Amino acid sequence: MDARSKPLLRALSGEPVWPPPFWLMRQAGRYLPEYRRVRAEVPDFVALCTDPARAAEVTLQPLRRYGMDAAILFSDILMVPWALKRDLRFAEGEGPLLAPLRTMAEVEALDVGGVAAAAPVFETVARLAEALPREHPGAALIGFAGGCWTVACYMVEGRGGGEFAAARRMAHAEPGLFAALMERLEQATIRYLAAQAKAGAEALMIFDSWAGLLSPQGFRRWVIGPTARIRAALKELVPEVPVIGFPRLSGPLIAEYARETGVEAVAMDTGLDPAWARDAVPPWVALQGNLDPMALVAGGEGMMREVEAILGALRGRPFVFNLGHGVVPPTPPEHVAALAARLRQG
Amino acid sequence: MDARSKPLLRALSGEPVWPPPFWLMRQAGRYLPEYRRVRAEVPDFVALCTDPARAAEVTLQPLRRYGMDAAILFSDILMVPWALKRDLRFAEGEGPLLAPLRTMAEVEALDVGGVAAAAPVFETVARLAEALPREHPGAALIGFAGGCWTVACYMVEGRGGGEFAAARRMAHAEPGLFAALMERLEQATIRYLAAQAKAGAEALMIFDSWAGLLSPQGFRRWVIGPTARIRAALKELVPEVPVIGFPRLSGPLIAEYARETGVEAVAMDTGLDPAWARDAVPPWVALQGNLDPMALVAGGEGMMREVEAILGALRGRPFVFNLGHGVVPPTPPEHVAALAARLRQG
Repeated sequence: MDARSKPLLRALSGEPVWPPPFWLMRQAGRYLPEYRRVRAEVPDFVALCTDPARAAEVTLQPLRRYGMDAAILFSDILMVPWALKRDLRFAEGEGPLLAPLRTMAEVEALDVGGVAAAAPVFETVARLAEALPREHPGAALIGFAGGCWTVACYMVEGRGGGEFAAARRMAHAEPGLFAALMERLEQATIRYLAAQAKAGAEALMIFDSWAGLLSPQGFRRWVIGPTARIRAALKELVPEVPVIGFPRLSGPLIAEYARETGVEAVAMDTGLDPAWARDAVPPWVALQGNLDPMALVAGGEGMMREVEAILGALRGRPFVFNLGHGVVPPTPPEHVAALAARLRQG
Repeated sequence: MDARSKPLLRALSGEPVWPPPFWLMRQAGRYLPEYRRVRAEVPDFVALCTDPARAAEVTLQPLRRYGMDAAILFSDILMVPWALKRDLRFAEGEGPLLAPLRTMAEVEALDVGGVAAAAPVFETVARLAEALPREHPGAALIGFAGGCWTVACYMVEGRGGGEFAAARRMAHAEPGLFAALMERLEQATIRYLAAQAKAGAEALMIFDSWAGLLSPQGFRRWVIGPTARIRAALKELVPEVPVIGFPRLSGPLIAEYARETGVEAVAMDTGLDPAWARDAVPPWVALQGNLDPMALVAGGEGMMREVEAILGALRGRPFVFNLGHGVVPPTPPEHVAALAARLRQG
């Protein structure tokens, strides 16, 4: 299939494709037994993300079951700090743990060119770009990175699971230090995403999962600004590749983000009203989202009512069906099958 | 001072009072040394909430330092489940722990009339209603409860600190069971808030801190619906008392909440753009908020820029200055003093 005829890429180019293309955030993951089998072979999560054969394998697993319209690289938003040589590990039940970054000396030690150390990630992309047209010719390959704000939250705090008080405080109390960190992350993210596109990613997504922690002024400075600059730089480096932005929990500011960053699509979180977004987001920006992951856990009629509400609101608009957040481990795989069957009817 | 001339109550009645009245969510708390002294005398948090002398004392502490325009009852949103005889304790560093509620038998065992067991809370309100006109004649007394959705999240999950997967799953997968729980909470909350008003609370606030976890359909069913019914019932029982609603992280749906619940004011969370809310929320509904609590931690010019942005957006509108979330323990008390001084200039 010619790349431009893939449903996901058509929707991202502004075409109201129907039935809508669909994929699910964290579609490769613990809810799938075949994922758990691969995961058991590589107890260390970073090792899995830097094992191109296995990372490509788990990326493709959900497509074999459900035939999504996109494969999203199996990786983690913290691979950028990892490539920049910040100590990173994933502790069982605790999530990511990093060496907290608090000083200008630590910021200045970040070598932006170090993203080249993420070569195994780019190799995974290359393998997928080779395998996908053969195995799933209609599916597009999505690469991704964390938004700079969100990555900085983890780097400063040293962990997730809380409200990132240290990072938020640094942004207010030491704006020069925080801006220096953000500037390096911005440069690193441009290189990291461009390398994925050059390895074969056909679309790129920027996950700013913690955008909602910021005040409006902070959101403009630390989310809209960096995203707009990253989008502009990628337009020079890999001009054909569309970008999906996900400023999670940004509320009505998602409309300003959509207007001002230049992204081709915005992903809606679970709480955003798709009927509101349909009217507030410029019509040339595609919308993606936003089924409640807990509706997918529950399945049945309750899930279908939520699905109908989303489809009803967005029919006729460039749109990509997805969740409002990632698939959670207790999700029954058969509920995903029921969702896929419903979406194929349009 | 005649009650109706208190700045907070004038703003809640739709008058654009300037300089705006102000108070801070969690203004009585660990950032104040005098609070920590009282807290040390009563290691058990529930015991402090049910000790009218001490609860009234800590309620008044911030007004003595900063002269806020409101005193908010020192209590906790989980006093309703506590009064309904659900096992509740606050573990050091872990937050609230409750016996998780999962069955219809447990719902049916909830005796709505049991809120009368919260008599010590109503006694605290009565003591404050007596002391406040003497000590701080311009300050209004605010009572509060958790929103039913948020209280149900804690009751079903048995704890905070996560994303309330069990409660969200129950809402989707067992809507009958969840609706039965919510219906009892609604009745209990009406009685609980009416009792506070009858004891002397001059305004009431409903904290739906986890409203943002819901899909739009869920938000309408589990947040807007119960809040509208509670507001209507209170209008019958305590017709003079205005209600402030806080559907945290509800994004653009806060406008629908403001239109459809009948509350006199809506509180904006940190991320909500006040300029957006000014235009989207009906002009007869007052706005409250929304300085980033981390800006208050940082203080200085950064804080002042955030304050100016909020004041600039809301001048001329019925408005109550507040934070976008509660005061956090590392807040330097002198930053609160600087904020109060700035706000008094209007």
